Amino acid sequence: MQDTIKELISYKMFKELRKYLSYKEPEDIAAALNGLSHEDMILAYRLLPKEIASEVFINLDSDFQEKLINLFSDKELKEVVDELFDDEAVEIIEEMPSDVVDRILNQIDKEQRSTINRLLQYPEDSAGSMMTTEYMDLYENMTVADALDHIRKVGEDREDIYKGYVISKDKKLRGIVDAKELVLANGDTPIVDLMTENTIQIKTLDDQEEVGKLFGKYNETSLPVVDKDEHIVGIITLDDAIDVIKQEAEEDFEIMAAVTPNDETYMKTSPIKHAKNRIVWLLLLMISSAISGAIISKYETAFAAIPILVAFIPMIMDTGGNCGSQAATLIIRGLALDEIKTKDIIKVLWKELRVSLGVGLILAICNGVRIYIQYRDVSKPLMENLQLPIVVGITLILTAVMAKMLGGLLPILAKKLKLDPAIMASPLITTIVDSASVWAFFSVAVAIMNI
Amino acid sequence: MQDTIKELISYKMFKELRKYLSYKEPEDIAAALNGLSHEDMILAYRLLPKEIASEVFINLDSDFQEKLINLFSDKELKEVVDELFDDEAVEIIEEMPSDVVDRILNQIDKEQRSTINRLLQYPEDSAGSMMTTEYMDLYENMTVADALDHIRKVGEDREDIYKGYVISKDKKLRGIVDAKELVLANGDTPIVDLMTENTIQIKTLDDQEEVGKLFGKYNETSLPVVDKDEHIVGIITLDDAIDVIKQEAEEDFEIMAAVTPNDETYMKTSPIKHAKNRIVWLLLLMISSAISGAIISKYETAFAAIPILVAFIPMIMDTGGNCGSQAATLIIRGLALDEIKTKDIIKVLWKELRVSLGVGLILAICNGVRIYIQYRDVSKPLMENLQLPIVVGITLILTAVMAKMLGGLLPILAKKLKLDPAIMASPLITTIVDSASVWAFFSVAVAIMNI
Repeated sequence: MQDTIKELISYKMFKELRKYLSYKEPEDIAAALNGLSHEDMILAYRLLPKEIASEVFINLDSDFQEKLINLFSDKELKEVVDELFDDEAVEIIEEMPSDVVDRILNQIDKEQRSTINRLLQYPEDSAGSMMTTEYMDLYENMTVADALDHIRKVGEDREDIYKGYVISKDKKLRGIVDAKELVLANGDTPIVDLMTENTIQIKTLDDQEEVGKLFGKYNETSLPVVDKDEHIVGIITLDDAIDVIKQEAEEDFEIMAAVTPNDETYMKTSPIKHAKNRIVWLLLLMISSAISGAIISKYETAFAAIPILVAFIPMIMDTGGNCGSQAATLIIRGLALDEIKTKDIIKVLWKELRVSLGVGLILAICNGVRIYIQYRDVSKPLMENLQLPIVVGITLILTAVMAKMLGGLLPILAKKLKLDPAIMASPLITTIVDSASVWAFFSVAVAIMNI
Repeated sequence: MQDTIKELISYKMFKELRKYLSYKEPEDIAAALNGLSHEDMILAYRLLPKEIASEVFINLDSDFQEKLINLFSDKELKEVVDELFDDEAVEIIEEMPSDVVDRILNQIDKEQRSTINRLLQYPEDSAGSMMTTEYMDLYENMTVADALDHIRKVGEDREDIYKGYVISKDKKLRGIVDAKELVLANGDTPIVDLMTENTIQIKTLDDQEEVGKLFGKYNETSLPVVDKDEHIVGIITLDDAIDVIKQEAEEDFEIMAAVTPNDETYMKTSPIKHAKNRIVWLLLLMISSAISGAIISKYETAFAAIPILVAFIPMIMDTGGNCGSQAATLIIRGLALDEIKTKDIIKVLWKELRVSLGVGLILAICNGVRIYIQYRDVSKPLMENLQLPIVVGITLILTAVMAKMLGGLLPILAKKLKLDPAIMASPLITTIVDSASVWAFFSVAVAIMNI
């Protein structure tokens, strides 16, 4: 699609491009425009049929949005802004420099402006900053006919008209009525008779992660947001929650790979930004892995006597790292999805102890056999030939146990200390386990081989 | 909540428990029951008000579902089964042993049974196995009044009544009408006038990953599934898509940590299953890291001459692994989210080259200074004291470049070969980079230090 747009522009076939775009979904057009040069993007955007232009605008990258706003006349800007729900407006405004924000707010009518200003005051990533105030409000004294009339009148401006929030005079949320029930019911029925009580509520200051979890758990198209006095102040809709669920998972992927999280896509991020997002962790981890180096240099006499020991360092370090990151990843995800609680710490450690003894034993046996076959010297007695496999085997078991116990322990500890468990992922655990496993290896070697 | 249920059971306060449960959401009840013993679970389930029992049942773990089905009388089973949409029935049946499946199918009326049998034939994880055939079907010759009548009549059994799928006589999907439009329009209007054409369609054999992506991209509450002749055969609803989005992300987390993916939660998985899911990868990676060992043993004379070299092996290996996993994770996620295409391979490598030169240089300088200060021998000439920092520095730059290029390249190659890019994550890349970096380190050392 992107190539077609580029080609049509290069041949100046603007009429054809306009027609072509009118067949496409706004989300796809935006994705294609996001990859174009500024000039082509602006050209193509200007050709869009009015009905879909603002929908495309919402889905553009924020730097393109800014470029377009700077080119818009006030009238054009107003046309786009009028089509936005207030949560969409807030999302766009949060990414803009202050002069652009002023221009946008000037094009918004007074009432909506005060709403948006209020929404902008909620902390970023809080439920308050995600919500829309344009929910389908019904009042407890309405009949079904009243409610349907009300929906017909104001429904056009509401984000989720299929769920009516029934409100008392003092703005407390009384309950919820499905549009389905209204359509199926008799016109005279009071809506309170159809209403189900609502027990799932989001607080304005709840973190967006919490919001994502609630939507992941309950099958709801929208959920109410209430302030500290339990007055309803808005709703969050499922489509915004999906974005959060995806975004939170991506953040965890990045943190767990020791990259500073970044909202931009890989391709859009400059090499300098990429380097910045990675270098701090690399430096920190490099310094801490110098500890393993220091431990090794203490055992110079050991590997001077038996140089082959050095050849096993990579295998022991890698196995430790892999054992640790397996456990850590499972625990980090379990914590993120609330499947594991911090109070489960003993159960987790007991499980990891058994798992690690099991895998450690298998690793030790497989590797022991390989080492024995590969390095045995038939001229020497059996006991001497068994020394190396036994040293490596014991080290592997110790390493697996340490790695998996740390992998289970550190994420839970992090959560208890109100840190993000994801930072305890493989890079950090690998570094810690490295020192421990190298130390174990040489200690065992010195003890068994009498070096 | 779990503790409360347990306590009420232990005091045999069943009436109170029944009342307590009636205030709770079915999803929460199921989550609490999933943690109970079989006996307590069955007891609590029997106390549930009828209206929510089947909703709770759907959310129970499959081993509990099986237990309950085995206890149900045919009548009880029928009550639960009647409440299931057909995609829910399919999901449950897929997890049951064949005798239980037979019992379930016997309780289902003939028509639904043939539907479910058809759905069960779609491959697991395909769109066909996720869809429901209970969509809101409208016909192209209907007026708005006809359509509303039809919705009132059959809406109770439909999963998403807010989106009407307009179908021609030959079962082709003509377009979509929002319930909103129907409610707002005049009764005489033909629905084809309100219909918007539908361009987003799912094929029955599409993978569920594809389905998740479509829902992540477009704001839709449901999407149509068509067969190869473009006849509509069902719809997939947003709530099922969310489960898939979450499940796919979790699978990637597990694969990237070298764990065989597992649908069960961490706590529910036995230590033996945990060990099984981890051991194969650990063995494979352990064997491949023996290659690094073999390379090291070739350079015995080098570190016999300069033993301090050995102390830098962990740092170089760790840094290589971290550099590689940073790049690999970003690329794997970019590919999973369709933000990076396989044709972008050159752009990715060019970007990683610049990033890696940047971070490599910074790592080399920081580390070089540290090594110089730590290891210099004032009695020796400057050039000799600079040898070690230079060797380590050059190795770090080479390692960063190799690691990041491989981290960028391998996931894209995997995708081209139709493998899951996630297997190219840190564990595998670390192992490969280890060999390369160890070899680079000793080669550079031998060349510069004249060993």
